Amino acid sequence: MRPAILLLSGGLDSATAGALVRKRFRLHALSFRYGQRHAVEIRAARRVARSLGIRDHRVMSLDLAAWGGSALTDRRIAVPRNRRIGPGVPVTYVPARNTVFLALAAAFAESIGAKNIVVGFNVLDYSGYPDCRPRFLRAFERVLAAGTKAGKGWRIHAPLIRMTKAQIIRAGAAAGLDFSITHSCYDPDRRGRACGTCDSCVIRRRGFREAGVKDPTVYG
Amino acid sequence: MRPAILLLSGGLDSATAGALVRKRFRLHALSFRYGQRHAVEIRAARRVARSLGIRDHRVMSLDLAAWGGSALTDRRIAVPRNRRIGPGVPVTYVPARNTVFLALAAAFAESIGAKNIVVGFNVLDYSGYPDCRPRFLRAFERVLAAGTKAGKGWRIHAPLIRMTKAQIIRAGAAAGLDFSITHSCYDPDRRGRACGTCDSCVIRRRGFREAGVKDPTVYG
Repeated sequence: MRPAILLLSGGLDSATAGALVRKRFRLHALSFRYGQRHAVEIRAARRVARSLGIRDHRVMSLDLAAWGGSALTDRRIAVPRNRRIGPGVPVTYVPARNTVFLALAAAFAESIGAKNIVVGFNVLDYSGYPDCRPRFLRAFERVLAAGTKAGKGWRIHAPLIRMTKAQIIRAGAAAGLDFSITHSCYDPDRRGRACGTCDSCVIRRRGFREAGVKDPTVYG
Repeated sequence: MRPAILLLSGGLDSATAGALVRKRFRLHALSFRYGQRHAVEIRAARRVARSLGIRDHRVMSLDLAAWGGSALTDRRIAVPRNRRIGPGVPVTYVPARNTVFLALAAAFAESIGAKNIVVGFNVLDYSGYPDCRPRFLRAFERVLAAGTKAGKGWRIHAPLIRMTKAQIIRAGAAAGLDFSITHSCYDPDRRGRACGTCDSCVIRRRGFREAGVKDPTVYG
């Protein structure tokens, strides 16, 4: 099987993306401890990697909180609560974060002879993040074709890109994913329990409701 | 003055690039401790930042040696000596390194409201690195236009891109740069002294000779 790097956050999207492609690729997972408020997601990422049978899971440290610029990396910026999620880039956008993550996934990929990267990005339910859009991914493939020794042939696979959260949850459930091991909350309490009111919790809860799947998350 | 991020390695190219644009931009510098064999270059980067009057110089740690794949990040791969430098990607190419560095420069830039990045990349004397080419830089600008909150208007400035090493050295000298504070060697000894025989030393020495400028470097 061809090797691929799975960008694995520990959330339900990247876990589902991994579950959907695991039969097509030999997956290597990459997660980041980037100074995020919800670093507890790394524990979830480890659980997900294990459940997907991924033996090579790297966790890289990267201090994006050094410059902050996001509610996720700067404690002085509050995480919005129970807001009506509309268009526009939210304060939880981390400057160029997915550009950085894809660049590092490509570095890891090239070192093991892989040219495929798998991500859980999607744009339907929450389109505020510019670095989840299809044209960003296509542009990034062109950067890799131009700027790597490996050259042409890179593919960034985003199997959920046009799915709603409910569709993602149904797809993950159908693939046998245990959602109780995933973590979505941006602002968990000290024990790592989901707040239930940040954008990520709001979208997750609504997704389970719309999917008609029981949400195993314990909200604080 | 508009702010810009200078990718500063401590070598003579990035130092010269900084010297050439310092009147056009308010420079913030970014260097990486990425597991490179020649981490001593970080000390040079600090000296260069100081000499350019850059007050905000960040040094980020990033473990690219975790996966290696280059003579610069894996001690088991030897640095070539006194070779005749020809076409082809050398073993000192670090997988997707400049993609990673530009991504992090963009993240830093976005957090301070900058859309300009300055690099010392050049392709004439040593065109083996795919991630120094103009089309890579243009492709990267398109990634940033598509994938950042800041959107369109990003510029990656590579003022040395089509200069020979001798031209770069003349330009740096004309801009008042003290080359003795820079470091180019890929494989310095324990005291940080340049080897004189790696590709980087070979090109540097030849550049000074061709430029008719005295090389202040002490080779080991």
